[in-house]
Amino acid sequence: MNCIILSVGDELITGKTVDTNSAWLAGRMVELGVEPLAHETVGDDIDTVADGMARAAARAEVVLVTGGLGPTADDLTRQALAKAMGGAELVLDPPSLETIAEFFRRRGREMAPANRIQAMFPAGSTVLPNAVGTAPGMTARVGTSDVFVMPGVPHEMKWVFEHEVRPRLSLPRRTIRTHIVHTFGRGESDVGQMIADLMTRGQSTTVGTTVCSGMVSVRLIIRSETAEQAQTEEQRLVAELRRRLGDLVVGEGEDTMASVAGRLLHRKGQTLATAESCTGGLLGSLITAVAGSSEYYLGGAVSYANAAKQTLLGVDSELLERHGAVSEPVAAAMAEGCRHRLAADWAIAITGIAGPGGDSEEKPVGLVYTALAGPAGTTVTRHLFPGNREHIRERAAMAALNELRLAMGG
Amino acid sequence: MNCIILSVGDELITGKTVDTNSAWLAGRMVELGVEPLAHETVGDDIDTVADGMARAAARAEVVLVTGGLGPTADDLTRQALAKAMGGAELVLDPPSLETIAEFFRRRGREMAPANRIQAMFPAGSTVLPNAVGTAPGMTARVGTSDVFVMPGVPHEMKWVFEHEVRPRLSLPRRTIRTHIVHTFGRGESDVGQMIADLMTRGQSTTVGTTVCSGMVSVRLIIRSETAEQAQTEEQRLVAELRRRLGDLVVGEGEDTMASVAGRLLHRKGQTLATAESCTGGLLGSLITAVAGSSEYYLGGAVSYANAAKQTLLGVDSELLERHGAVSEPVAAAMAEGCRHRLAADWAIAITGIAGPGGDSEEKPVGLVYTALAGPAGTTVTRHLFPGNREHIRERAAMAALNELRLAMGG
Repeated sequence: MNCIILSVGDELITGKTVDTNSAWLAGRMVELGVEPLAHETVGDDIDTVADGMARAAARAEVVLVTGGLGPTADDLTRQALAKAMGGAELVLDPPSLETIAEFFRRRGREMAPANRIQAMFPAGSTVLPNAVGTAPGMTARVGTSDVFVMPGVPHEMKWVFEHEVRPRLSLPRRTIRTHIVHTFGRGESDVGQMIADLMTRGQSTTVGTTVCSGMVSVRLIIRSETAEQAQTEEQRLVAELRRRLGDLVVGEGEDTMASVAGRLLHRKGQTLATAESCTGGLLGSLITAVAGSSEYYLGGAVSYANAAKQTLLGVDSELLERHGAVSEPVAAAMAEGCRHRLAADWAIAITGIAGPGGDSEEKPVGLVYTALAGPAGTTVTRHLFPGNREHIRERAAMAALNELRLAMGG
Repeated sequence: MNCIILSVGDELITGKTVDTNSAWLAGRMVELGVEPLAHETVGDDIDTVADGMARAAARAEVVLVTGGLGPTADDLTRQALAKAMGGAELVLDPPSLETIAEFFRRRGREMAPANRIQAMFPAGSTVLPNAVGTAPGMTARVGTSDVFVMPGVPHEMKWVFEHEVRPRLSLPRRTIRTHIVHTFGRGESDVGQMIADLMTRGQSTTVGTTVCSGMVSVRLIIRSETAEQAQTEEQRLVAELRRRLGDLVVGEGEDTMASVAGRLLHRKGQTLATAESCTGGLLGSLITAVAGSSEYYLGGAVSYANAAKQTLLGVDSELLERHGAVSEPVAAAMAEGCRHRLAADWAIAITGIAGPGGDSEEKPVGLVYTALAGPAGTTVTRHLFPGNREHIRERAAMAALNELRLAMGG
């Protein structure tokens, strides 16, 4: 079974937006045992999109289309599908209209007349409901191919794919299992060397690495004739990875650094507070992105200015003058002040130079101190992170959370 | 003049790597006045790549190909070009071989035998030297089209494009200008309706909308015979957009909500502090993502737990008990306490229910109060945001910054 992925949008064709939907869909299709033959991107134009659909349908069994289902005049993918189907008319689907109207009502807003078009579909197509937005998808036969049209907004596309498209695919009978193990603390090439002999791309098992936000993730794809074989092989490989990678392993699957640290806190019934300078709230934002984080996270201070370090955390002004805000003693004082003021079991502090500017020969851009104050005392770690402002801030927040994880034995 | 962009690689077709080259090339071509008709991605297979080249050459005047010029067995783009040219032989180009050998020598390494293939080109093609890597590009006529092949490594691709491809393009004399205007406060369909008559897709001007993080952006592409005409039309359209959209307009181009609010603060020499509950630091993180934000941002409190609201911001415990943490009086007290404690000109507070869970009939998921305390007093706004936890938090932070922007007359 094979597929072609067609993404639609002027913002894509002109290079204003990088297409991430196609890579996501391709990855999912490979996991499901379907071979992507090509990705194609075209602009918001009825004839061009219809031609693209017809050409793709002539070459592949499944065509996945994303984008162009919005309510404005430049959203023309539904009309293009009608054309590719041989000139179907657009007809109103009353249940979809009601769902869209309800979507607005629940949010205390009235549906704009323009949104009515999102409840119209080519006659002969099937509606693919969208529970997370106002753009339902649709599917129809074009030639001998199944064409699935999904919204372009990534989280809506993913929802419609998982709930409406995937169950409709006539997938090959092989069992496919995927598993992902997240690590932190070493680069991709180091992790690659530690598991080099496992990283073969065989017919039955694929092991590869990807990097995101400083986490190096090892992805397994296991294909097998039976579910039992696949599960046995998955367990064997995951155990082997954990043995080799040791405490570099942060978690698996949907785990994030913050969710893993949060789980450890929750289990021990302990609490956490944060004191952030150069990360400016990013650490707290990562921690509170986890639903249920109010169970263990108390809050903290964004002590960006020195005055805030004194007022909110009680850092001694003399300490700030003598060592500067980016220093080991100030990091320790921030963490300890924060832990004390909020009566938390643990406190993390971050102070550093994210750049551009603000650096000196002694304190270059990328210099960050992270401090962890806990029941057994305070430790400070000096880091020198590469990259730009965004990268330095992200690495600092991740490294600080990782130190908490390791201190808690995670 | 038009073009098709063809990217080659198994890592792209299977979704392991997101293709950023195509967006970059498309953006450059639009700037140069060349219209991209499509992007296509195919895997490392001689026949598939050759077919892709031939199909693209039949539709577009220029075909830009990236990837598959490396030294390993799965790099097959040079063979594919030879096939698309009608079966040309690969011949060695001695100057290219010398350049590659020299590339290794300068780095104190010896050229591997495998790299010799990188100095071989289809007979009848022209070498495009690559000063920053070992994979030279090449160009040849296929049918009536010019096909340019560049390496897939982004910085090598960019170098070869700028130094070898661009000078060889017979560029049209038309001038192309692009402009983007960011709005906040109304949905895409509302904005679309306000400018519906401008959103025609003519030969000379394209007006479209895109959404990101709650900002609806209006994108203009203006094509004209002369630079003067294009500039006049751009100014006319931007003025018309600004007239119709009024204070929905946040900024243009690279502006973000936080950079615009920051610019207003910086201009007036005023300072800002923040008090965050459900956003947990996200607002501070957005503000401090802007380089130079220490000029106006003092910091603040992440008052996630009620105790933190009392300790860090001095919110009255009776107020919390009577109205609950998610309420108008508590939002106001958070903003005022924060403004007072940090001696800031302005303070923003956010308290809400990001979900999932923590809601009640009276206080549903998505209910957020934003408060702005400033020189003229405090205002509180009640919001009901749609979407999941991530969206609600993002919308809340953006809405709060927008209220500051409007209060400062931005």
